[in-house]
Amino acid sequence: MNKNILVGQSGGPTAVINSSLAGVFCGGKELGAEKVFGMKYGIEGILKSEFYDMDELLKTEKDIELLKRTPASFLGSCRYLLPQPEKGNEIYEKLFKFFDEHSIGFVFYIGGNDSMDTVKKLYDYSELTGKDVKFIGIPKTIDNDLLITDHTPGYGSAAKYIATSVKELIRDGMVYDLKSVTVVEIMGRDSGWLTAAASLSKGDDCEGPDMVLLPERPFDADYIIQKAADIQKSKKSLVIAISEGLRTSDGRYICEIGRKTEKDAFGHTLLSASGAYLASIIKDRLKIKTRAVELSTLQRCASHISSLTDVNEAFMAGRDGVKAAFEGKSGEMIIFKRVSNSPYIMKTETADIHNIANYLKTVPDNMISKDGIQITGAFREYALPLIMGETEQYISYGTPRHIIAKG
Amino acid sequence: MNKNILVGQSGGPTAVINSSLAGVFCGGKELGAEKVFGMKYGIEGILKSEFYDMDELLKTEKDIELLKRTPASFLGSCRYLLPQPEKGNEIYEKLFKFFDEHSIGFVFYIGGNDSMDTVKKLYDYSELTGKDVKFIGIPKTIDNDLLITDHTPGYGSAAKYIATSVKELIRDGMVYDLKSVTVVEIMGRDSGWLTAAASLSKGDDCEGPDMVLLPERPFDADYIIQKAADIQKSKKSLVIAISEGLRTSDGRYICEIGRKTEKDAFGHTLLSASGAYLASIIKDRLKIKTRAVELSTLQRCASHISSLTDVNEAFMAGRDGVKAAFEGKSGEMIIFKRVSNSPYIMKTETADIHNIANYLKTVPDNMISKDGIQITGAFREYALPLIMGETEQYISYGTPRHIIAKG
Repeated sequence: MNKNILVGQSGGPTAVINSSLAGVFCGGKELGAEKVFGMKYGIEGILKSEFYDMDELLKTEKDIELLKRTPASFLGSCRYLLPQPEKGNEIYEKLFKFFDEHSIGFVFYIGGNDSMDTVKKLYDYSELTGKDVKFIGIPKTIDNDLLITDHTPGYGSAAKYIATSVKELIRDGMVYDLKSVTVVEIMGRDSGWLTAAASLSKGDDCEGPDMVLLPERPFDADYIIQKAADIQKSKKSLVIAISEGLRTSDGRYICEIGRKTEKDAFGHTLLSASGAYLASIIKDRLKIKTRAVELSTLQRCASHISSLTDVNEAFMAGRDGVKAAFEGKSGEMIIFKRVSNSPYIMKTETADIHNIANYLKTVPDNMISKDGIQITGAFREYALPLIMGETEQYISYGTPRHIIAKG
Repeated sequence: MNKNILVGQSGGPTAVINSSLAGVFCGGKELGAEKVFGMKYGIEGILKSEFYDMDELLKTEKDIELLKRTPASFLGSCRYLLPQPEKGNEIYEKLFKFFDEHSIGFVFYIGGNDSMDTVKKLYDYSELTGKDVKFIGIPKTIDNDLLITDHTPGYGSAAKYIATSVKELIRDGMVYDLKSVTVVEIMGRDSGWLTAAASLSKGDDCEGPDMVLLPERPFDADYIIQKAADIQKSKKSLVIAISEGLRTSDGRYICEIGRKTEKDAFGHTLLSASGAYLASIIKDRLKIKTRAVELSTLQRCASHISSLTDVNEAFMAGRDGVKAAFEGKSGEMIIFKRVSNSPYIMKTETADIHNIANYLKTVPDNMISKDGIQITGAFREYALPLIMGETEQYISYGTPRHIIAKG
């Protein structure tokens, strides 16, 4: 059978998506793949026959180490929705012709929820048509919202960036001797995993955010403003961490209230300014100084503070994906299974992609306090191991060194 | 004469303002100060007789090291404008009574432009009334806009954060195979030093931002949009770094166009959403995907990526300030003088506070390209040494450890 490998990256990147790519490359080399090809801009590139020979890009051990530390998608990415798989469909015919022409027996797609839909459809098409190509999904999303897996690669680094930044903002908020509220807006459209990570700033040198508001709970302006006023009776500087995806009980995003929004290729509403909205209503009602900080895109690309645990696990997910495919598995995604929490031991398994794609994992009730404005110890126990460890940075001229794909 | 020391922090903090505080504390101890007192929330705290005994807060060598790594103002800060010094003014009488009661012979104020105005007035009052108290300003501002000094403590760390973040955002912007413009909004009301630092991301692993727009040049929307269209003929993903303080040739802040703004205690317009404005007009005119990223408050508090050069120089500024005062100087500010650039050697001197307070240093013409959209090699040569070196972080539970003032 064909022994070449094709690997692609899809969807929004993470700080460690390239560590998974390094894992696929190294795993492929270890297990005797002849060639490892990389999709230029995901499956969309393959439809235009655009790809890299990975041996040309990664020549030394140092290149691999730099790749693990480089943010964004090294190969380029896409947000491309495949049609339903049907015999004779020309898009699938084109893709499988490409696989055949390049002797590709194994395809790895590193991505999140929407990307796993691509893996599922490619696998279904291979089943439908009896093609012997193995398809494995390598999970990747800062959102941590994939089912079945304990967590997703990329989440730990984003969580570490968020916890560190929120801790610094909490300190900054206490500078003046006056009442103030800082609203920190954090990514996460439908699940609050990233926003909950703000609570990891808490320790004996930091009180942590005064409220942590997740999309898992409906947003009630009166309730939140009353809570803020209550907390401020004993404390001047408040910090509230909120998800960009906060919605009122009638389902409206709070950032939509009174402003126009846009939708992306998948029909998702593009969110922003939820924090600015909350800061403005608190200011109006409580007559105090407020400011809104949007942690923005840096949440997914701040590899300068990536979690070493995350970098290593992302690599493991890629490498173990190759192992699974070479053992004959297909239509599966690599998942993480927590063997023990203390000491923290994580191993990989695989799970049927049909049970993962297009589903969503939200923060469970036991991780959210009864009053809906705080995170419980159960979350801390779950998430703290994921942000542990610092990645040694390779610095040149004062900034972290990256590797870029040329050609 | 009185040998006790009083030290305060004023204005917006930086990532290393506490390193200067550590420098004053250690310098005072070295030179035999009996007591080092800290102003709680700057001069405003002293008016309420609120202060710390620094020996109670900093007990070990580890405390000093943590202080150097803790963002925001450890003592608390204020934005308080002293009245003109006149004999018998009750505010000055109150302050000098406090100095006298606590045997304070030396006052150090760590701050930026507005804070140096406080030092100047206190000194002028001491001259006017023949009081033997020495006043020394320790420069601090991420804006780097103080006259006479080569640069200001705090600028190097902010510049390192900006260069690193912009580098990560440039990588992130290249992820998809489509035309896009990312506008990164950077602090700096009247000077472009911080925005210029975005260009330090440039190297053989990063092209750097495609435009860098400083408040030193009037903003012309047609010109910038035309430039963007030109650059995009050969390159899909553009990143434009802009100052929050960009103004049109008639003096209007671009963030004011079509929206209401507010002013702070000093009458400065509070700026935000300049980036969102530019992103929106580029989107309207070029019909491409744009996004705006505001680096926000993290520019002044991201001590997790502080420049080691900056941390050390900030300490030096504090310590040498004490030395100068003990040598009898007053009404002066510590300045940096570059002895040589290669190797980089910096020393401190003092300069008359009257020549510094309330003046502004902007980016000189030779550091801005003729077309007004790029930064020259002269800036790089000047600024690169300031972001060199990484500060070893003390991490506990996955985030950098801080020290907080209790009591």
